[in-house]
Amino acid sequence: MRNVCVLGAGSTRYGKLDDSISDIAAQASADAIQGAGISPKDIEASYIANVFGVADKQVHLGPVLMSTLGIPDRPSLSIESACGSGSIAFREAYANVAGGFYDCVIATGVEKVTHTGTNWTTTYFAYCSDFFYEGQAGASFPGLFASMARAYIEEFKITEEDLAAVAVKNHENGAKNPKAHLRKGITVEDVMSSAVVASPLKLYDCCPFSDGASSVILCTEEFAKSHGKYVRVVGSGRGGSPAALQGRERLTTIPSTKIAAKQAYEMAGITPDKVDFAEVHDCFTIAEVVDTEDLGFFEKGTGARAAADGRTGLNSDIPVNPSGGLKSKGHPIGATGIGQVAEAYDQLTGRAGERSVRGAEVGLTHNFGATGASCAVHLFARP
Amino acid sequence: MRNVCVLGAGSTRYGKLDDSISDIAAQASADAIQGAGISPKDIEASYIANVFGVADKQVHLGPVLMSTLGIPDRPSLSIESACGSGSIAFREAYANVAGGFYDCVIATGVEKVTHTGTNWTTTYFAYCSDFFYEGQAGASFPGLFASMARAYIEEFKITEEDLAAVAVKNHENGAKNPKAHLRKGITVEDVMSSAVVASPLKLYDCCPFSDGASSVILCTEEFAKSHGKYVRVVGSGRGGSPAALQGRERLTTIPSTKIAAKQAYEMAGITPDKVDFAEVHDCFTIAEVVDTEDLGFFEKGTGARAAADGRTGLNSDIPVNPSGGLKSKGHPIGATGIGQVAEAYDQLTGRAGERSVRGAEVGLTHNFGATGASCAVHLFARP
Repeated sequence: MRNVCVLGAGSTRYGKLDDSISDIAAQASADAIQGAGISPKDIEASYIANVFGVADKQVHLGPVLMSTLGIPDRPSLSIESACGSGSIAFREAYANVAGGFYDCVIATGVEKVTHTGTNWTTTYFAYCSDFFYEGQAGASFPGLFASMARAYIEEFKITEEDLAAVAVKNHENGAKNPKAHLRKGITVEDVMSSAVVASPLKLYDCCPFSDGASSVILCTEEFAKSHGKYVRVVGSGRGGSPAALQGRERLTTIPSTKIAAKQAYEMAGITPDKVDFAEVHDCFTIAEVVDTEDLGFFEKGTGARAAADGRTGLNSDIPVNPSGGLKSKGHPIGATGIGQVAEAYDQLTGRAGERSVRGAEVGLTHNFGATGASCAVHLFARP
Repeated sequence: MRNVCVLGAGSTRYGKLDDSISDIAAQASADAIQGAGISPKDIEASYIANVFGVADKQVHLGPVLMSTLGIPDRPSLSIESACGSGSIAFREAYANVAGGFYDCVIATGVEKVTHTGTNWTTTYFAYCSDFFYEGQAGASFPGLFASMARAYIEEFKITEEDLAAVAVKNHENGAKNPKAHLRKGITVEDVMSSAVVASPLKLYDCCPFSDGASSVILCTEEFAKSHGKYVRVVGSGRGGSPAALQGRERLTTIPSTKIAAKQAYEMAGITPDKVDFAEVHDCFTIAEVVDTEDLGFFEKGTGARAAADGRTGLNSDIPVNPSGGLKSKGHPIGATGIGQVAEAYDQLTGRAGERSVRGAEVGLTHNFGATGASCAVHLFARP
């Protein structure tokens, strides 16, 4: 297999956007193309990540994007793996370049859902669960993650304030990110006094629904060297978990994360302590806690205390979600996983501004679908 | 890149099915696994093709399927390229095996839409067009293909009866296919007297909406040799066209087909006359006519007459759609492209029964999305 690099990255602002799904996909893509210092004609294929194109009446987004970019003859496809779609689309783009099919491709994730309202969105999101066992029984994602949080609190004797610390830290980072959805600092008190969504999770334990698009250019190292700044993809892993929570032995770990992380670390030939920062899937505060343990940064049962002790802050032991994460940067479903890669690119090429992780050489991205039924982990390094 | 083979294939019946989308996906997958003579544990990853999971309230189908098959730890993803989703999912499965990521994977296409009614389905299908320019202007797919048919009739002076001959031939083949949706012979008279859907296309010029699932096992040749009967994937190509019809120079050719076919033929090192049968995308009769020309079987403008003269019949010059095609076998969107590969497998391994193409050594599959905005072509050969 060939070495693959990320050559450029772009994003719209995440939040409530007025433009159409096609337009925001094109805006992020154009941003990535410009950042990479390439021409659209250099792009040989596109990998779109999108889940609910039906919400904005545009499915089959690839040809629309390719036509807008002036390269309608190039092949495209859309990938859906629930909230993990972005990282899986990135992985397919990676596999096609590594495998020798293309030298330069674009991966763009996009979602436009806020105009549909929270009821529609929560209902449709529930179709990403194992609907027969979960969604139709009334278990939408806040309820499912609340079950995980309750199990974690019981098993490891942590407090709801410990979970709240994750949200506080991510808002602190997100406030420094000009493209973040919820760009404001919050306190543990704010989290604790926010409305209960599904006990023990309160509103500020939950990420928002966002509109947004992110895009990255992937290419061979040979191609990258003759263009702009680039980072190497040094590890890639994918895994699965039983689709329904009820099929799992424990609720306090996500099997797919461990499988994907193991593959990625082995491929890169590194251990978790060599990672300088991580963008992880924090759809709810409990998710980030579980992620940081499953990824090997902390022992099982100690992740919440580690967060409360400030060990995941911007320039601490292991900076987690320097971008603000899903919690503060926002969660435009299909875009999220590619937005993480864009953050890794920005961090490793000195473009992260106020939220920069000092001296970062290696970054990790971790993005899953549903309650972790599907997951991909990637590792990036400075060349 | 490594040689890739198709080792087994399975399908549900196409038509109006009662089981859930998850269940029919599992049925076809189990059929393919059994046909391949492998255990589910041999499968390292899955590639699902599906467009409207929302219609049956199950998106993120991969983990549900993997869990049902008893291999929940294996990675999965869903691919959407409108009606071309199946062939694109097959292509990604192919690329991952060829590129060395996995030795044995499953590609399963599925759709469950008939319970939603034709109005819902036609509306949602229109989201696969370039909706800003087409769908919201009232141009659903029958209207768009009617524009192509009208242009073709004007340019090449053919008759509506010539188009009808395509439907008659496909129904003749489909009547011999135990899994076909519309399993009955029809006459040119039947087509001509059927209700006008979008002039000049009548009801019998249009394929049906179908439920159904198809599945194939892909693997390295080394893996295949120690298992069941297999065929080689000898060519693979993908292409794109301007998303909206209005962006194209001509309405009587589909650019993406030509691009994808050229790549596939070059990779296989063959010319169109070496193809013994072809499964092509005949969502409407006009589509099959245009396909057979763009694929190089007939000169531009002569495909309709060739069909009317019987040159695409089961054991004639170039048998087209021996399965019955989308027109008679049915069109369960995500399943269609993988169903074509299943037919190629059956034809080349002596499992096609009454509809067998005598002495077939090389088969072609051609599947596109929307009005051909995305397209993939594959070539298969006996080992």
